[in-house]
Amino acid sequence: MTDQESRYDSGVKLLLELHDDRAKALLETMSDVAPDLARFVAEWAFCDIYQRPGLDLQRRQLITVACLTTLGTEEQLRSHLKTSLDVGLTPAEIVEALMQCLPYVGFPRVLNAVTAARTIFAERKLLPVES
Amino acid sequence: MTDQESRYDSGVKLLLELHDDRAKALLETMSDVAPDLARFVAEWAFCDIYQRPGLDLQRRQLITVACLTTLGTEEQLRSHLKTSLDVGLTPAEIVEALMQCLPYVGFPRVLNAVTAARTIFAERKLLPVES
Amino acid sequence: MTDQESRYDSGVKLLLELHDDRAKALLETMSDVAPDLARFVAEWAFCDIYQRPGLDLQRRQLITVACLTTLGTEEQLRSHLKTSLDVGLTPAEIVEALMQCLPYVGFPRVLNAVTAARTIFAERKLLPVES
Amino acid sequence: MTDQESRYDSGVKLLLELHDDRAKALLETMSDVAPDLARFVAEWAFCDIYQRPGLDLQRRQLITVACLTTLGTEEQLRSHLKTSLDVGLTPAEIVEALMQCLPYVGFPRVLNAVTAARTIFAERKLLPVES
Amino acid sequence: MTDQESRYDSGVKLLLELHDDRAKALLETMSDVAPDLARFVAEWAFCDIYQRPGLDLQRRQLITVACLTTLGTEEQLRSHLKTSLDVGLTPAEIVEALMQCLPYVGFPRVLNAVTAARTIFAERKLLPVES
Amino acid sequence: MTDQESRYDSGVKLLLELHDDRAKALLETMSDVAPDLARFVAEWAFCDIYQRPGLDLQRRQLITVACLTTLGTEEQLRSHLKTSLDVGLTPAEIVEALMQCLPYVGFPRVLNAVTAARTIFAERKLLPVES
Repeated sequence: MTDQESRYDSGVKLLLELHDDRAKALLETMSDVAPDLARFVAEWAFCDIYQRPGLDLQRRQLITVACLTTLGTEEQLRSHLKTSLDVGLTPAEIVEALMQCLPYVGFPRVLNAVTAARTIFAERKLLPVES
Repeated sequence: MTDQESRYDSGVKLLLELHDDRAKALLETMSDVAPDLARFVAEWAFCDIYQRPGLDLQRRQLITVACLTTLGTEEQLRSHLKTSLDVGLTPAEIVEALMQCLPYVGFPRVLNAVTAARTIFAERKLLPVES
Repeated sequence: MTDQESRYDSGVKLLLELHDDRAKALLETMSDVAPDLARFVAEWAFCDIYQRPGLDLQRRQLITVACLTTLGTEEQLRSHLKTSLDVGLTPAEIVEALMQCLPYVGFPRVLNAVTAARTIFAERKLLPVES
Repeated sequence: MTDQESRYDSGVKLLLELHDDRAKALLETMSDVAPDLARFVAEWAFCDIYQRPGLDLQRRQLITVACLTTLGTEEQLRSHLKTSLDVGLTPAEIVEALMQCLPYVGFPRVLNAVTAARTIFAERKLLPVES
Repeated sequence: MTDQESRYDSGVKLLLELHDDRAKALLETMSDVAPDLARFVAEWAFCDIYQRPGLDLQRRQLITVACLTTLGTEEQLRSHLKTSLDVGLTPAEIVEALMQCLPYVGFPRVLNAVTAARTIFAERKLLPVES
Repeated sequence: MTDQESRYDSGVKLLLELHDDRAKALLETMSDVAPDLARFVAEWAFCDIYQRPGLDLQRRQLITVACLTTLGTEEQLRSHLKTSLDVGLTPAEIVEALMQCLPYVGFPRVLNAVTAARTIFAERKLLPVES
């Protein structure tokens, strides 16, 4: 097995673990238009970056959620909010992370992020959030 | 003492603890142009937001650093990189947080952030960073 | 009554005046996920900031609309376009404000903002806009 | 005929050529809210800028697609992805242009852009993309 | 005289009136690298847009300052802060406009903008700002 | 030689070819703070992405320059403007690419980019630009 195969396999494994059905949909959707983009998500983002030592998955998710809230890319934010729950962050911690973004990125982006979070918490019957 | 005085005092206390001389300079600089802006930094950002329970200061700093890296606001990033060290994050953890931003915000903003971090680590004789 | 209660009450009053049903929906939506976010919108944005002397509400709305057009946050833009009408700005003045953003933020964001404005003007039977 | 009339006519001609029905819809939609905005799109963007010598239309489209991908303005991106096909760029070249944006703007914006491209390629029966 | 000459002349006239030496420097600097960029600033931004009826220059400046604060483009912001004073906005009104941006764009960009304003007010001996 | 070594070597080779001394400085600067960031620039950006077939280096540079102009990251823009000259784009083509960004990203970012280009052209005695 080449390095690249093993980076890919390792990245896909983590990607499926953290994003499950959403990851499958992504890999499939990209397969007829930009298969290498899916490959880079797996090999590079989810193997080379995400599997580095030095920060646990919860901290990595908090950082990712802050980046996506600041960018305002809601599709990816929704996916990573789900992953944040899956790695053990509580709804209260996630909301608190979004509140922490408030002084730096302003109300509009944070209101959108909290609204996205609320939808996900509702689907998983996690409302109301206990602070 | 009114609520507002106590929010202000409490915010200034934390602000000085976390940003020391930089905070003093900010409060002074703003005093003849926009004293209420300095007041809001203290009362709102550093009392109402930063002192909320639910996330420790290290996590708050990681989130803040991710926001500022994504925005590309380097003056504030430098200040919060210093604070990140002061609340006990290691240089390796800070670098790792910046690496985690890479797939989401791209190389230019992360290279600028790591360059800023390197200058601060050099000043504090924390180079080379041990991973 | 504490300072905080009175800031909250005063902010909610203005918020309901300027954003009516949209504000009610926001306060309700946030109540089970991030009640403090709604509280900060009221206390901080709509009391501490919006009620400051020195600029009338029409000017505040023009500035807000420019910020939201530049950010591209359309949900909040739509809400503030309605408020802009409610504080007495004419459709022609609102369109003119969006045109003024054009050299600084480019066509895509301004086309999106004008399209949003057109929908709102249509709902209120304010088309065509007389320049 | 004044200069302005001829700039307008020339811009509209190119606009209809490159964006056909979408351009007609834009000109019509703007006519009762901000007719000058449509006029500036024609006169300025599609006459003064687009018709300058020095870069062919394919290169202009690649640059435009890169700008819109970076901004994340998907409505305009979709329109310019169609135009990119119409000026003779292949689906593979368009995908490759989006891949080139990846290190600079990160995965979220590029995934959104590739997803938009895939929808357009599907409508035109251009899937799978042959690299 | 063609339309284009008169748009150019009219734009340069206003540009020199509002930005004086800075405008001269811009026109000169661009002359050997991108003379048409300077021409578009004059013809398009300062004739076609700025001279439209419907909003006075003070309101146009407040909108421009809000856009530039949100974008974080400080060179242009500094220039337009000076122009804002020149069209009769008071330092207190300018600071107030920047405060109004705070809930929408966050502290970092507003702190940078207020710091820029303070430098300009100092040069013109307009400190302290009387609110 | 593993895949990773060969990706790294291949990326460094192209990086040195395209960015010469600037690349050396980058690799050295990162070596004591975030060596893997430099490695990813080489392996991923300059091997996995830049060396893909399907677009020549000139087109890749035009796309990169458009992304960096839109982001406003001037340090990286300056470096890629130099590379754009090195892969054979003329000053006139580079200026034209920046003009093409104008309707999409607005004057401030384009003025900054053209000013950066002018400095580089001056260093290389390429002024005035012949259109």
